[in-house]
Amino acid sequence: MNVPPPSDGQPSNPNRDHVNALAAQRIIDSKPFLVDIKQVGEILPELGQYDVLHAGPPLSGWDEATDVLKGSILGALVHTGLVADLQEAELLSRSGSLNLLSASDHQVAATYAGVITRRTPVFVVENRVAGTVALTALNEGRGKALRYGSNDAQTLEHLGWIEGELARILGTAVRASGGIDLFAILSQALHMGDEGHSRQKAASALFASIIAPHLCGSGHSPEEIMLVMRTLAENEIFFLPLAMAACKATMEAAKDISNSTIVTCMCTNGVRFGIKISGAGEEWFTAPVPEVRGQYFKGFKLTDATSVIGDSEIIETMGLGAFAMAAAPALARYVGGTFENATKISEGMYAITTVEHPEFTLPALNFRGVPLGIDTELVVRHSIEPVFSTGIAHRNAGAGQIGAGFGRVPLQCFAAALEYVDKKN
Amino acid sequence: MNVPPPSDGQPSNPNRDHVNALAAQRIIDSKPFLVDIKQVGEILPELGQYDVLHAGPPLSGWDEATDVLKGSILGALVHTGLVADLQEAELLSRSGSLNLLSASDHQVAATYAGVITRRTPVFVVENRVAGTVALTALNEGRGKALRYGSNDAQTLEHLGWIEGELARILGTAVRASGGIDLFAILSQALHMGDEGHSRQKAASALFASIIAPHLCGSGHSPEEIMLVMRTLAENEIFFLPLAMAACKATMEAAKDISNSTIVTCMCTNGVRFGIKISGAGEEWFTAPVPEVRGQYFKGFKLTDATSVIGDSEIIETMGLGAFAMAAAPALARYVGGTFENATKISEGMYAITTVEHPEFTLPALNFRGVPLGIDTELVVRHSIEPVFSTGIAHRNAGAGQIGAGFGRVPLQCFAAALEYVDKKN
Repeated sequence: MNVPPPSDGQPSNPNRDHVNALAAQRIIDSKPFLVDIKQVGEILPELGQYDVLHAGPPLSGWDEATDVLKGSILGALVHTGLVADLQEAELLSRSGSLNLLSASDHQVAATYAGVITRRTPVFVVENRVAGTVALTALNEGRGKALRYGSNDAQTLEHLGWIEGELARILGTAVRASGGIDLFAILSQALHMGDEGHSRQKAASALFASIIAPHLCGSGHSPEEIMLVMRTLAENEIFFLPLAMAACKATMEAAKDISNSTIVTCMCTNGVRFGIKISGAGEEWFTAPVPEVRGQYFKGFKLTDATSVIGDSEIIETMGLGAFAMAAAPALARYVGGTFENATKISEGMYAITTVEHPEFTLPALNFRGVPLGIDTELVVRHSIEPVFSTGIAHRNAGAGQIGAGFGRVPLQCFAAALEYVDKKN
Repeated sequence: MNVPPPSDGQPSNPNRDHVNALAAQRIIDSKPFLVDIKQVGEILPELGQYDVLHAGPPLSGWDEATDVLKGSILGALVHTGLVADLQEAELLSRSGSLNLLSASDHQVAATYAGVITRRTPVFVVENRVAGTVALTALNEGRGKALRYGSNDAQTLEHLGWIEGELARILGTAVRASGGIDLFAILSQALHMGDEGHSRQKAASALFASIIAPHLCGSGHSPEEIMLVMRTLAENEIFFLPLAMAACKATMEAAKDISNSTIVTCMCTNGVRFGIKISGAGEEWFTAPVPEVRGQYFKGFKLTDATSVIGDSEIIETMGLGAFAMAAAPALARYVGGTFENATKISEGMYAITTVEHPEFTLPALNFRGVPLGIDTELVVRHSIEPVFSTGIAHRNAGAGQIGAGFGRVPLQCFAAALEYVDKKN
């Protein structure tokens, strides 16, 4: 093991360099495959009927949830048949009987305000090197969606089809495939204009064409298969939860390495941002959720926006998304910037990461690997907050997406995490 | 009509500016759709059994054809059942009974050395604005292929499947689709790392996911559909002939405008490069085929290469391919360059084109439209030869691709074309 010499006046820390290198290697070695679609309860039997998994670090309870998250929880309670209607759902929620749990604490990645119960069908992603597993719900598409807090009859009917027919038919095809290599798709997509988070057009098209033969041979009726294929072909962000679960199953493999300052999780519950680092196990380090700078769709402005929520920053934690903006010039305009600025955003992240991913490369930077392995110590030393890309949703539950942009994970999280691990070691 | 003032000492030519603008507008307005798969003879009943369509301008006869083209012709004669074996095919070819015809003269685009007879099943592409139609053969994939002059039993068996089962099943789906908008696919693919010629990964994946629902509903057996979908999913250049036919059907709409110096066709038969320009109708202007600069696969070198052949420069004629290299950073490395140089190649072409395409945009150049409408006068005035990208094949028939790179269409073609149209007007 080569120990780098002390630089810019900082003391050398050979053990930490060693354990951080180990964490980075576990990330690089990971091979997450989509292997199945199952109900959450089959994988996590410990979940009870009143348990609801949400994005971000834990909330203190129902009252703390943002309106968008509340809308999503109410919809999920009706959808799973636990209550008869939204009124009953609200009574149950206010009663304090629900257990709101952080999805990230349970191998689950929740998209935006989407919530997951033990009855939710989920993609099962297995990291075939480390044996870790991550779960995530199927994407509902860009229209009205529970993940934006929408819970009217139309939204729930559509969700019923997604979690019923679609999950059942797609599940057959996934099992028949013997497992789909998600990093193979993501690494190609990086050469096809996706950055792996906000833009999923290439990955979704590649996934559709890989799963198609298995769907054809699945034994379902031509009409059923046709509808599933059409849904896949028309949903440009279908792959988003798969990217999240692939990154989650990967980052799970880098957890619990004593003294390591490598970040293993970044996410937000709409109130607080939270991070975890390898050397601090399941400990959360949180700070108030920051504002997002971006581009609003016509007719919308900053004051219409709800605070950012979701587990999707697990993608940036893995070196993709805003860390790989140089891969996605077409996204730069969508989030309100130029390609030049987008490239600078990627390049800025090399200062706070420890390695470059050998398989995930950026053509526009002459095939440099993406910046990987966020080191809490480097974040604090340089005061550079990790950047993430995100959609912006309306503050009213169910009104949906009104823009897209960039945010920064608060420095405060990293300072607290570093102090914790320094004290511990 | 605004007439630009005379610049850099050149006389103004209001009529030519007007007709060139008209030609460019016809290109921009074009909407090529894939509408069917049929045998060539159904569309071009004038073709006889001894007619063979090849790439590039007309050849003087069999003796002038390169070895790779000869290999392809022999294979096609056996494949279509006109002769019993390759020996008979060679006798027939040497007898002078074959009519070698330029595909470009017959609304057909031939890929590399691939030849087309009246019995070849072809994609039928219709420009729904101009009513022009272009035809092109289905892509055989990257392995052994007739288009590289391979004609052994294995190659012909595979071709039999492509032109039999695949064409039949895909044809049903194409007709059921009501027509597939090829420019919609190409313009998206430009934002997904394709330049529209040598890299077709995004376009092929998008095409596969668009056609998939129609395949599912086509009434064929699950096994047949599965095999077709697998073929589409595994062939990264499946879309190449579709891009060529889309550009061909478009450039046909810009033909025959008196006094216009806009280039409507560029292609090579392996011996001579040839161009057509709008104001000179079906007249060819040719020059010896130039060398290609590029990157050879391991173990191969310049002297192993055959001269470049094919109609695929119709793509550059339409502002894509090497004219849009800034869209395809991952291709830059494949052809031996850097992204920076690739971008410069695109940018250099603005000096010889008259407009920028409003729908085909380059994210890396902040969404500037691709350089469109090659003006013969500008090529000659600035002595800038249009660039094209191409695969490099082995000089031995059937040995296949050994590299990829860039070439330049010889200035001599343009000087002759300009002289012709100047004299005529």
